[in-house]
Amino acid sequence: MLYGWHPVVEALRNRKRALHRLLATENSARRLREELGDLAVEPEIVRPDEINRLVEPDAVHQGLYLEADPLPSPTLDSLSGQRPVLALDQITDPHNVGAIVRSAAAFGVEAIVTTARHSPAATGVLAKAASGGLEHVPFLVVRNLAEALIALGERGFQRIALDSSGEARLDAMRVRSPVVLVLGSEGKGLRQRTRECCDAVVRLDMPGAVKSLNVSNAAAIALYAVTRALDHVAEPGDPEPVA
Amino acid sequence: MLYGWHPVVEALRNRKRALHRLLATENSARRLREELGDLAVEPEIVRPDEINRLVEPDAVHQGLYLEADPLPSPTLDSLSGQRPVLALDQITDPHNVGAIVRSAAAFGVEAIVTTARHSPAATGVLAKAASGGLEHVPFLVVRNLAEALIALGERGFQRIALDSSGEARLDAMRVRSPVVLVLGSEGKGLRQRTRECCDAVVRLDMPGAVKSLNVSNAAAIALYAVTRALDHVAEPGDPEPVA
Repeated sequence: MLYGWHPVVEALRNRKRALHRLLATENSARRLREELGDLAVEPEIVRPDEINRLVEPDAVHQGLYLEADPLPSPTLDSLSGQRPVLALDQITDPHNVGAIVRSAAAFGVEAIVTTARHSPAATGVLAKAASGGLEHVPFLVVRNLAEALIALGERGFQRIALDSSGEARLDAMRVRSPVVLVLGSEGKGLRQRTRECCDAVVRLDMPGAVKSLNVSNAAAIALYAVTRALDHVAEPGDPEPVA
Repeated sequence: MLYGWHPVVEALRNRKRALHRLLATENSARRLREELGDLAVEPEIVRPDEINRLVEPDAVHQGLYLEADPLPSPTLDSLSGQRPVLALDQITDPHNVGAIVRSAAAFGVEAIVTTARHSPAATGVLAKAASGGLEHVPFLVVRNLAEALIALGERGFQRIALDSSGEARLDAMRVRSPVVLVLGSEGKGLRQRTRECCDAVVRLDMPGAVKSLNVSNAAAIALYAVTRALDHVAEPGDPEPVA
């Protein structure tokens, strides 16, 4: 279940999506055709309040509602490791996960490994916060995150966890590809078992009075630092970073 | 108007706050005394639905509601420039501004310069998203952002704007103190006049399919890059960054 302009447009653009049912207001259907030309599924024209009844109260659906299958999920074995992988340890709030998906799509993350299955309603919220990013980063849902990290380690992935108790600073970390970046939830942090399955635990030093960041902001900074470090490994001719 | 655990606890801890009225459920009042000891203002014990009526629908107030004066606002002349200053150009969504305030407090930002005055209701939402950060970063509300940037430039501030059209990469930017980092809104970006009053416009390169970040995530990355660059200027004995 997807709603809102960006999530629905990006899903309609995505050939990997199996589409079932599209509801649109007259205006939104016209805008859709202007944007996309022929539509892969014919919209049923409805009034806005018919969509209101299908989504969360206060959801900003912009006159668009789409039912579709979840995207095909990769397996741990099929990950190429050419781009960073993200693993989420008990981060479940759909607003936060959605914001993380958007950043993951912007930083070219290959997949997000998680144990959480979101309900259709939560998926709608998540997709809205991801602003179209859900079409570009597949979810890989595993039963046990620790086992998944062990399997990735056996395939040569460097496993870097971010936690306030980390022994090294994130920006002093030597990152190599393939890499999986592991994030814990805001309140609880990483589970002990997750931490034990990582090669390094790094921290973000906060010079100010507030010592923790919103988890999606921490994720964005970690993705920035990791992709930047990998770029420098990949392109040795790059100018030195200006200190 | 503040509500929720972190915003209210941090405001009660802040000696600079002029407090007027504190409403608390019996449980929350007990937790408050456990956390803070004697309270600067005596709570009126109420039922949760009495607070429900005072805040936004669905607001998570956690049984706490506080009326207080806004914090004293610095002037442009009184900024020391010892820590970075942040300027927001037409970023008004209270969720986004609140998340930015939280990151600003974590990165030790001296003040946030903005033209937006938030209504009391929006301030509640903003304070909740800032998770206590509002007590640590004062707002400096100006009538005209361009004039404020000109005044800061005359005081020697380096003015760095972040925009997708930037001519240099953020991480290749030579940052010096004092510095003001200027952010535009997600949809509209920076206004032309704001851009003209900056010394440099830098961009964040996104390698992935989605080309823009949520504005609070972009702010967090920019603050990370800027404070990291300043640390390296300030401490020349630091180990070289690992590439």
